[in-house]
Amino acid sequence: MHSIRAKTGAPPGTILYSGETHTAKVKITLIEYNETEFIEKEYFDITDCINNFDPTMVKWINVDGVHDVTVIEKIGKQFTIHPLTLEDIANTNQRPKFEDYDSYLVSIMKMLYYDGELHSEQLSVILTEGMVISFQEAQGGDAFDLIRNRIRQGKGRIRKMGADYLAYALIDAVVDCYFAILEKIGDRIELIEDGLIANPDKETMRQLHDMKREMIFVRKAVWPMRELINNMERSETELIKQGTDIYLRDLHDHAVRVIDTVETYRDLLSGMMDIYLSSVSNRMNEIMKVLTIITTLFVPVTFIAGVYGMNFENMPEIHSKWGYASVWAIMLSIIISLLIYFRNKKWL
Amino acid sequence: MHSIRAKTGAPPGTILYSGETHTAKVKITLIEYNETEFIEKEYFDITDCINNFDPTMVKWINVDGVHDVTVIEKIGKQFTIHPLTLEDIANTNQRPKFEDYDSYLVSIMKMLYYDGELHSEQLSVILTEGMVISFQEAQGGDAFDLIRNRIRQGKGRIRKMGADYLAYALIDAVVDCYFAILEKIGDRIELIEDGLIANPDKETMRQLHDMKREMIFVRKAVWPMRELINNMERSETELIKQGTDIYLRDLHDHAVRVIDTVETYRDLLSGMMDIYLSSVSNRMNEIMKVLTIITTLFVPVTFIAGVYGMNFENMPEIHSKWGYASVWAIMLSIIISLLIYFRNKKWL
Amino acid sequence: MHSIRAKTGAPPGTILYSGETHTAKVKITLIEYNETEFIEKEYFDITDCINNFDPTMVKWINVDGVHDVTVIEKIGKQFTIHPLTLEDIANTNQRPKFEDYDSYLVSIMKMLYYDGELHSEQLSVILTEGMVISFQEAQGGDAFDLIRNRIRQGKGRIRKMGADYLAYALIDAVVDCYFAILEKIGDRIELIEDGLIANPDKETMRQLHDMKREMIFVRKAVWPMRELINNMERSETELIKQGTDIYLRDLHDHAVRVIDTVETYRDLLSGMMDIYLSSVSNRMNEIMKVLTIITTLFVPVTFIAGVYGMNFENMPEIHSKWGYASVWAIMLSIIISLLIYFRNKKWL
Amino acid sequence: MHSIRAKTGAPPGTILYSGETHTAKVKITLIEYNETEFIEKEYFDITDCINNFDPTMVKWINVDGVHDVTVIEKIGKQFTIHPLTLEDIANTNQRPKFEDYDSYLVSIMKMLYYDGELHSEQLSVILTEGMVISFQEAQGGDAFDLIRNRIRQGKGRIRKMGADYLAYALIDAVVDCYFAILEKIGDRIELIEDGLIANPDKETMRQLHDMKREMIFVRKAVWPMRELINNMERSETELIKQGTDIYLRDLHDHAVRVIDTVETYRDLLSGMMDIYLSSVSNRMNEIMKVLTIITTLFVPVTFIAGVYGMNFENMPEIHSKWGYASVWAIMLSIIISLLIYFRNKKWL
Amino acid sequence: MHSIRAKTGAPPGTILYSGETHTAKVKITLIEYNETEFIEKEYFDITDCINNFDPTMVKWINVDGVHDVTVIEKIGKQFTIHPLTLEDIANTNQRPKFEDYDSYLVSIMKMLYYDGELHSEQLSVILTEGMVISFQEAQGGDAFDLIRNRIRQGKGRIRKMGADYLAYALIDAVVDCYFAILEKIGDRIELIEDGLIANPDKETMRQLHDMKREMIFVRKAVWPMRELINNMERSETELIKQGTDIYLRDLHDHAVRVIDTVETYRDLLSGMMDIYLSSVSNRMNEIMKVLTIITTLFVPVTFIAGVYGMNFENMPEIHSKWGYASVWAIMLSIIISLLIYFRNKKWL
Repeated sequence: MHSIRAKTGAPPGTILYSGETHTAKVKITLIEYNETEFIEKEYFDITDCINNFDPTMVKWINVDGVHDVTVIEKIGKQFTIHPLTLEDIANTNQRPKFEDYDSYLVSIMKMLYYDGELHSEQLSVILTEGMVISFQEAQGGDAFDLIRNRIRQGKGRIRKMGADYLAYALIDAVVDCYFAILEKIGDRIELIEDGLIANPDKETMRQLHDMKREMIFVRKAVWPMRELINNMERSETELIKQGTDIYLRDLHDHAVRVIDTVETYRDLLSGMMDIYLSSVSNRMNEIMKVLTIITTLFVPVTFIAGVYGMNFENMPEIHSKWGYASVWAIMLSIIISLLIYFRNKKWL
Repeated sequence: MHSIRAKTGAPPGTILYSGETHTAKVKITLIEYNETEFIEKEYFDITDCINNFDPTMVKWINVDGVHDVTVIEKIGKQFTIHPLTLEDIANTNQRPKFEDYDSYLVSIMKMLYYDGELHSEQLSVILTEGMVISFQEAQGGDAFDLIRNRIRQGKGRIRKMGADYLAYALIDAVVDCYFAILEKIGDRIELIEDGLIANPDKETMRQLHDMKREMIFVRKAVWPMRELINNMERSETELIKQGTDIYLRDLHDHAVRVIDTVETYRDLLSGMMDIYLSSVSNRMNEIMKVLTIITTLFVPVTFIAGVYGMNFENMPEIHSKWGYASVWAIMLSIIISLLIYFRNKKWL
Repeated sequence: MHSIRAKTGAPPGTILYSGETHTAKVKITLIEYNETEFIEKEYFDITDCINNFDPTMVKWINVDGVHDVTVIEKIGKQFTIHPLTLEDIANTNQRPKFEDYDSYLVSIMKMLYYDGELHSEQLSVILTEGMVISFQEAQGGDAFDLIRNRIRQGKGRIRKMGADYLAYALIDAVVDCYFAILEKIGDRIELIEDGLIANPDKETMRQLHDMKREMIFVRKAVWPMRELINNMERSETELIKQGTDIYLRDLHDHAVRVIDTVETYRDLLSGMMDIYLSSVSNRMNEIMKVLTIITTLFVPVTFIAGVYGMNFENMPEIHSKWGYASVWAIMLSIIISLLIYFRNKKWL
Repeated sequence: MHSIRAKTGAPPGTILYSGETHTAKVKITLIEYNETEFIEKEYFDITDCINNFDPTMVKWINVDGVHDVTVIEKIGKQFTIHPLTLEDIANTNQRPKFEDYDSYLVSIMKMLYYDGELHSEQLSVILTEGMVISFQEAQGGDAFDLIRNRIRQGKGRIRKMGADYLAYALIDAVVDCYFAILEKIGDRIELIEDGLIANPDKETMRQLHDMKREMIFVRKAVWPMRELINNMERSETELIKQGTDIYLRDLHDHAVRVIDTVETYRDLLSGMMDIYLSSVSNRMNEIMKVLTIITTLFVPVTFIAGVYGMNFENMPEIHSKWGYASVWAIMLSIIISLLIYFRNKKWL
Repeated sequence: MHSIRAKTGAPPGTILYSGETHTAKVKITLIEYNETEFIEKEYFDITDCINNFDPTMVKWINVDGVHDVTVIEKIGKQFTIHPLTLEDIANTNQRPKFEDYDSYLVSIMKMLYYDGELHSEQLSVILTEGMVISFQEAQGGDAFDLIRNRIRQGKGRIRKMGADYLAYALIDAVVDCYFAILEKIGDRIELIEDGLIANPDKETMRQLHDMKREMIFVRKAVWPMRELINNMERSETELIKQGTDIYLRDLHDHAVRVIDTVETYRDLLSGMMDIYLSSVSNRMNEIMKVLTIITTLFVPVTFIAGVYGMNFENMPEIHSKWGYASVWAIMLSIIISLLIYFRNKKWL
């Protein structure tokens, strides 16, 4: 489970990194583009980065790593970001949210990765006039690579649109990653389901439980996205231009679809849990039946055998010529009638 | 389970077909009608289709198959449909929704079919001034045939009304199909219910589970319909004329009824699951009772028989004349008193 | 279960009867009254009925049977009722609802009857200026008889008030019938509850399940009534006069109380289901205890008896004078110490 | 269970008493007070009571008993109370509610008493200009005694305030009684909880079930109180003076706290039900373990003893000198290894 | 369980302490500060405290202990606090809430402590112009020490801001303490989870139940915080200056995150309960399997042994040379075939 690791007692606005410890240097990538031009550079200091600004181009500053608080502080100072925003960016236990600080908009989201188990990474996207600043927790950035490539190659409409469209595209990439995760989980659900009635065991139980926990995890990341996008749509900011509205509406639909799927999977999983439990109890039934049949068949006849194993002197049957045979006959008829009884009960 | 098959990473507005692979050529049917005239033609190219337009008639273009993205693109270009709408039409994993793009309205829905198991097909209906364009996923179109016939025969009010009424009629056909599906599911529920208490077995469990899953499936298609129709009613578009309002309200009632029925079935199914589980546990009880009765009857008397099977030299009872008979008497009285005890306990 | 029997494929506004088949002729009753006069007549044709109208009196046309579609159509034509309303009246699978068509108001409701099992009948009440038209599904009309009597006898305020009060009184009669039904169900719940812990059996389970299903049924009829009355209260129609408002508010309270009671019963029933299941499992426990005690008491001593039943030549105990007695002593002490153990465990 | 006892069929506004039958004469108490004076008298007829009115004093008329409909009717006539209000006062199955009739306000509530089991009594409080009329179901009035005393003694601010404050004080007394009831239920929950894991038996189950039912009962009385007070706060009546607002807000908080506690208890109770069921199943496990251990220990060795009890002539072991001893050794080693196996399984 | 301890019957506005009995003298601490100066003093009487007021500085009066009602009354008189507020401060069973009394704002909250089990303490924060008055239940004040230190050291922005920021900081400290508590509970959840499938026992059950109860407890304290902060944000008071808004928004986010975590833990706990129950039933299955296998293996062969232990004279097998050996062969083959059967059933 991910720790909440609260910054108990620290004054508000204190920028504290709350994720795992990293020592790597934070890498800052600047991409500038307009419909015709494209520039991409790497920096380790935000001041270098700013010197090179071309005011007519859309700028995308991507910060890889939020563990170095000084970097965040510097950026905050440079672009007059509110300390509470900086605190939110560094504290990687945020709930996804959108906030409008008039001079900029900030969206904080959870990117999910799946490699055997589920990981999450916090992404923050700040949109100011003509510029997007994105922060990523770990050193990676798979999700944004696709967008970077689209900008590089000038494919689609991204190079023709402004910074607001870029911010939208980044958020869209996050929602897309949820679809991919859910696809994988859906496959695993199907896999488990096939063996569920046939062969339920402890392992199945453990898997179901794991997936339920994963769904709780995914849900926590996904549910607030709808609200985030909603707030974005309804915010009366001028940073989002009119043409981008329609893309946000589309994004909203995607978020709702993701949530729908999450809820469907939860329903399926709890249905499967029921199936599992009922299969276990069916197996118990079967075991009990075997026990009961065997016991019921042999206990009475064993008693009869015991009777004629007694050593009383005065036991007339013992001396009869047909005694042994008749006892066998009796015992067999008991067994046979019990078998018939069981067949009628449909236990056999 | 239907795959979500997300278009992870593709730029928004990319038109990607996401359903099963089809190779059949997409068929385009144009129906033009007014109160007196009726024309029906088939095309394979949208450009041919457009040449023949009569501006005074209501036009219905039906596209059978959305797997050929170029066809969709061509239509989009012709009628200036927004790329996001085209993407939604081609991506057959949409959540049902209604969108108002000023110059046109689009409703995306799920048609359900039932042939042993449940299938769904995505339908998109675009309403522009004087024209409806509908897209169907597979090559079929049972549901719309009825409307086509009504237009051909000029029965009812459809020929007297405009394109908005036609769009309404198509959506109404979809909601009607839900009633038919629910009718079938209701029949199956009744069938299972009859045998539920009498004879619960693994198969019953499996069927209940299957139906629960189907209800999740149906629900996912049906719930958004209410919202869809609601949005349609409340949209301030001029494409929907005043007289059609009342039909939309009626449609809304139908959608609510469908949802009501779905919820009722879900309640019934979970009630049946409870019944099943309790019947299973009742059967277990019965098995246990048989086991207990048999064991309890014979174990004590078998012990007594065992005692007199011992080979001690000094066992006075052995030599008594009435020993054997008294042991029998004791054993029988034990068995009889146990039987009485069981009868009092209502186990017999 | 009541069938949904969808009119799949029929054009909207098609008036189709969807209930059980009746052949009886539809009877139309006209009651005209004001504070001083009262006229009651029966017709088989609506046109006869209309000829006799006195414009200064309140008119109540009651139609017994909706299976004859031509009757409904004629009435619709006479009073210019919208085809969709007529369709709703004839289709007896409506969800209870209220609709305001400017020139008239229509309320569709479900009357419930209980005779061993639960039946429902659809009632439609149309209120126009100075006139109420009511439609009843089957040939009966118990619920309205009371109101008819009140009008006949001129008791209460009904003769002094207008058509809107009459419409209110009819709806009030429907809500009153829910109280009567719930009273009966409440009695049955109490009956079952008494025997629940004492003597739970399969039959109890079946009854609980039946009542749960009935509550689903009742709930489906009752829930929409609140909305219906709400909509009626809030509608800005001039057909409902000012003095009737207060009666609608009272009606609303009644509907809420009915819903409250339904929900309480559902809670009680699911509590009883839990009790039942736990009683079943308590019984299982008791059975297991008997089995375990008997087995545990006799299996060890039977083993000892078995040991001295062996035929080894070299068994010194066999020949000992006190052998037999000591074995009995050992066996008895085993049995006694086990009994003490069980008593400590509180199994006895 | 309290009966609903619907007045099926009676015309609205008919005043019918629906509680248990009482024959006692209805007692009317009039209290008149202002900051300096205090008068308290008893009457059996409302007309006598009214003759003595001093218009400058706050008047509180308390009616003990609503079973005598004529008394209620007389009061209604005297103070022009609407028939529907009178009906609500007499029908003791009301849902708690607040209504504003312009010239007066009426609050109908449920007072709860606990004496081994839970009882409820309906209270109605009518506030008109300068006067409060309260109706109580049974002959008692514990809850109001405290307020009467406060008025008599002139303690607190009650004598300084108007009739609206008095009405508030009466409602506050009802909410206070809920706290007392919940306190008692809370004590019982704690009591049961202590013995729950240690010693779960049928009696515990029955108690849990009883308390669950009581919570359903309490909840039904308590939930509507929030709405009642809410409506009171929001009503734009001039009967409630400005200074009383703040007390209503406080009352609202109390009602919310009561509801919170009720919900907490429900959660606790259903948690305890789970504990109970799991304890029962733990006990079953224990019983099964004892059974299994005993059976498993002795069945194999009994078999061995049985083998050497066979009477075959050709059994070499029988004649061996060490035969008997070795069989004992084998049997003991089987028992010991089984004991080790069980210890490893943690069954011992 | 914390008692509700209602003040049944006392008139509203009566200041009654409802917590545990304390005898310690109530300590009043006054902190005055502005950006440059800082004064901290202790008093035992509020009148002394007030003499020393410097109107240009922010004042924070902290009252340690609410068991001495006279102290609260004095403070109330001094700063004209409404009696209802004073009652709320002294009654330590309040639901967290925010109230706006125009001249001051009051927030009542629950601080949670965890030392083996969960304790709660009521905190009340009153904000008036330029002054904060805080009341703490017990003699302690861990949570506020951190803020006191921040003020002393002049770190952060607290010394530069007004009384409204101080009030915010106190509430923030409370929310921070929830994170700390949840962190601890999260750790315990993880601990239990590890041993859950491996080794479920009664103790696990008890722990799960305890944690569920704790979550109910935490939830009751935490849920109203969101509303509290919401109301604070939306109140149109002038006591909260414009710059503080943004901190309240942040506080609101924290509260939502706390609630999210609480709900997640509840989900996890109920998932673990399911796991526990299913593990218990898996163990039962295992025990049953052992019992069934042993019984099934030995009961039939014991019967055979019993047969040849009978003393009939005419038993030809007895005298056969290979009788004994063949019986062994039969018995072994029965055991072996049963073992194969069990292996096929996957019981071994």
